[in-house]
Amino acid sequence: MTFGDDGRAALDWLERYRERMAGAPVLSQVAPGDVRAALPPAAPERPEPFARLLEDLDQIVFPGLTHWQSPRFFAYFATTGSEPGVLADLLSAGLNNIGILWRTSPALQELEQTMLDWLAQLLGLPPGLHGHLEQGASISTLAALAAAREARPGARTVVCSEHAHSSVDKASRLLELDVRNVRADEEFRLRPEELDLSGACAVVATVGTTSCTSVDPVGTIADACEREGVWLHVDAAYAGAAMICPEFRWAFDGVERADSVVVNPHKWLFVPQGCSALWTRRPEAFLDAFSLVPEYLRTPDEVVSLSEYGPELGRSFRALKLWAVLRGYGAEGIRSRIREGVRLAALFESWVREEPGWEVVAPRAFSVVCFRREASDQENEELLERVNARGAIFISHTRLDGRYVLRLAVGNEHTTEADVSLAWDELRAA
Amino acid sequence: MTFGDDGRAALDWLERYRERMAGAPVLSQVAPGDVRAALPPAAPERPEPFARLLEDLDQIVFPGLTHWQSPRFFAYFATTGSEPGVLADLLSAGLNNIGILWRTSPALQELEQTMLDWLAQLLGLPPGLHGHLEQGASISTLAALAAAREARPGARTVVCSEHAHSSVDKASRLLELDVRNVRADEEFRLRPEELDLSGACAVVATVGTTSCTSVDPVGTIADACEREGVWLHVDAAYAGAAMICPEFRWAFDGVERADSVVVNPHKWLFVPQGCSALWTRRPEAFLDAFSLVPEYLRTPDEVVSLSEYGPELGRSFRALKLWAVLRGYGAEGIRSRIREGVRLAALFESWVREEPGWEVVAPRAFSVVCFRREASDQENEELLERVNARGAIFISHTRLDGRYVLRLAVGNEHTTEADVSLAWDELRAA
Repeated sequence: MTFGDDGRAALDWLERYRERMAGAPVLSQVAPGDVRAALPPAAPERPEPFARLLEDLDQIVFPGLTHWQSPRFFAYFATTGSEPGVLADLLSAGLNNIGILWRTSPALQELEQTMLDWLAQLLGLPPGLHGHLEQGASISTLAALAAAREARPGARTVVCSEHAHSSVDKASRLLELDVRNVRADEEFRLRPEELDLSGACAVVATVGTTSCTSVDPVGTIADACEREGVWLHVDAAYAGAAMICPEFRWAFDGVERADSVVVNPHKWLFVPQGCSALWTRRPEAFLDAFSLVPEYLRTPDEVVSLSEYGPELGRSFRALKLWAVLRGYGAEGIRSRIREGVRLAALFESWVREEPGWEVVAPRAFSVVCFRREASDQENEELLERVNARGAIFISHTRLDGRYVLRLAVGNEHTTEADVSLAWDELRAA
Repeated sequence: MTFGDDGRAALDWLERYRERMAGAPVLSQVAPGDVRAALPPAAPERPEPFARLLEDLDQIVFPGLTHWQSPRFFAYFATTGSEPGVLADLLSAGLNNIGILWRTSPALQELEQTMLDWLAQLLGLPPGLHGHLEQGASISTLAALAAAREARPGARTVVCSEHAHSSVDKASRLLELDVRNVRADEEFRLRPEELDLSGACAVVATVGTTSCTSVDPVGTIADACEREGVWLHVDAAYAGAAMICPEFRWAFDGVERADSVVVNPHKWLFVPQGCSALWTRRPEAFLDAFSLVPEYLRTPDEVVSLSEYGPELGRSFRALKLWAVLRGYGAEGIRSRIREGVRLAALFESWVREEPGWEVVAPRAFSVVCFRREASDQENEELLERVNARGAIFISHTRLDGRYVLRLAVGNEHTTEADVSLAWDELRAA
């Protein structure tokens, strides 16, 4: 068999996968250890044909997949590995370019920089920002907070709303920074009047919190940060994508004053996993935190390499998938997909509002609806597990004002009104 | 156009790429800014067909690629994105599974754990280690040193040889640990008699240093670490792969006593970029450093998720490419490729030794030869730049005992005796 034949078999497998996935539970129903038990205890001594791998993908792996590509995946933030994005990952692996220094792949570095410029423009960020890609928002936030710590020696506190993402806590622990949580208002936004910046090296403002997509008042927070000389990092990992539509741009008010901003194209910009965009207007602070060129990496090139702005040395060709999606869909194609996601979420929200015994528990800003049965936390929790076990849809939960809350997140590009309607039927049936 | 058609076009592009690459300079010869200048200043408004992307890949990207897949790439550590590995990355992107929690993809997590078990066996590591994959060794080392810091509160020094990889310095800076370098002996190995573990939380021993693939005396270092209760991290990012062959296993003497070990399958195990294996016998220290479960990620599942052992939250399906390569090549296929790489390096080394005016400047343990013209540093540096500018091969350099040294690294699976012979011709001609 040749690369081409095996490759065509892999493409065919993926085309069949999409059909097959439609008949399977969205949340995998295997028990812990099932997949592991089905795998041999050791690697084979002799080579096996690629077709055997595809067979085992069907037999062993498939039941253990949670179908993130399903249009009925409504948990966390629903995502899409779009066709151009998936094929770009094939190309990226096939080229196997590794960005260590600029010269180890000028195209990788310069396409990355250009894509960050394109995306900044599309989202209404100011010109002139320095941008690069990290694997995910946890690493982006880690890099940004490391730069913030470097920029204000001695200040060891990160300030953020109680609804900030757990990656802020994780990065702060690694950086040995304290996290000071600020209470949120009734719409789950950081209360700027309760901001205390004493000893702070950074404030993390969130545009689109994970729990309920609330939007912190970035402009007011920026005022305080500027007054005190504190780094402002904006976590727009999810909602940043929506800024491609002018009608959502209100949520980015003040973001032009941030020191760093993260938006994940792998969340709601139809790019496969492993693509987190990080911009800064203070690149020198990132260099202070990360730049380091050992002898075996010195070259006569007068170019700063992107590895000097973050924790990685070798970077993969992530920009290729962003390029493929931005071109394959065009700005208008992305806008229409974002708008359709928001429309479907709004529709679902209206059904919940109209139904006795159910309530919407947070304002819906984008494509996530937070709601619950008017019943105990336990009943809601059991409802969630029951719905997910039935398998037609997969949704997740959070806790708001101490109450257990169901979340329906629209974000897969193939989700239709029928899928959202099915979700509502499933929830009511359970 | 459909996914299948576009996908076949991408496969064809990659097949043509291999032929086309053969006629192009291995090290890209573009000037800084060339690629960027050839790209439009903004994303297109309207969708474009995938074929246009492939055209621009030819016209704009290709000249800016440094051909890591070329059999005449001899710089840094030469790598291979093998066919099964590349196609697994296609499948991984197509499935777009994201490992946040076990339930978000049981197959992703359990295949990852199983692959780490398979690989540990193949490399002769002891049974029972906890393993997971990170994106690269910089992140693996960061995670290991974070665990080490957690395991020994108050101790703030990382001890390693002067030849340890720069990722140790980078991670230590992020973790605010001091690095104490220990001098190396005449064969570039850490001198254990000069180990000073006062205030140390970790020692990093290197099996296969980046400069010259020297092997630190891990067993002796382990004695000292055990005596003092200091974490021993082994960086075998490159040379760990060779442990699949019993004749190189001497280099892993004592590694069974390490607290953590990193080996990069994306270096010399024919796996595309983005696959670094990290094992530990002290997983609880990683949990102490990284575990953190916010409300929106709590589930009734009684399974610890791999995201609790490292800095990432969402992980991509990296295990798939490791699975594909281990099965596609089998242990014996990997062994024979490793042995051939070492044979070619040894052959090259013998040519250098026999040639008047040239010298081998470090013992060759694996597939990297360190050598130089018997001439000034400047002459050697100019020689390197001249050879790389000619384009037939790409090699890199390091500095040993203060002298500028050329490095020839064999590692691409398609490298033949003719390629190595050409490298030698090019060097002598220059």
